[in-house]
Amino acid sequence: MSSTEINIVAVLHPKQGSVDEVITIFSDLAKWIHANEPGTLVYQVHRSLRPGKDGNEDVVIVERYKDAAALKTHGSTPQFKSMQATFAKKKLMRAAPEIHTVSGKGGFASRL
Amino acid sequence: MSSTEINIVAVLHPKQGSVDEVITIFSDLAKWIHANEPGTLVYQVHRSLRPGKDGNEDVVIVERYKDAAALKTHGSTPQFKSMQATFAKKKLMRAAPEIHTVSGKGGFASRL
Repeated sequence: MSSTEINIVAVLHPKQGSVDEVITIFSDLAKWIHANEPGTLVYQVHRSLRPGKDGNEDVVIVERYKDAAALKTHGSTPQFKSMQATFAKKKLMRAAPEIHTVSGKGGFASRL
Repeated sequence: MSSTEINIVAVLHPKQGSVDEVITIFSDLAKWIHANEPGTLVYQVHRSLRPGKDGNEDVVIVERYKDAAALKTHGSTPQFKSMQATFAKKKLMRAAPEIHTVSGKGGFASRL
């Protein structure tokens, strides 16, 4: 973990019945990111292992950027803006997301 | 991301003035985990890039386990229980954590 890296942990709250669609949107975006954003080092899409007592599931995205410029690039692509427009139009979320912008302070990212 | 892997994203809310201590506790635990828990594949400790408007910072821990057995092993070690006892005794947190237990559904974990 170099000191310029910036991590984002986004916790998203899709409506019941919309989780698959939300995952597809972000998984497709991740493929484009992998091919086109060398400064985006990690972009992982996760889903709740099982629904909560209320039947809801969350989608958690773990992202890592080489530096602030890479994060800015990520947020300004037509693909990112198109994803935002899709969510604004389709109202797939039951609540606003929690976005945690954090920097690595310890631990290990892999066993390779 | 193999289908047996389980990821945990824990969002912790330390009291102001306790963030450094919380990070030290988890970073020290991560060193022990790296040396002693081969089934724990990722254990990363993060801190808010900057305090929020309320002056508070969060600690976000991203964890990945080879399978359910590895997760169970992690939660049953004396070191894990000692960490829990420290937090119960020292009251370092301003609010309860959010623990997201999730499975990988897309994206990429590294560019190696």
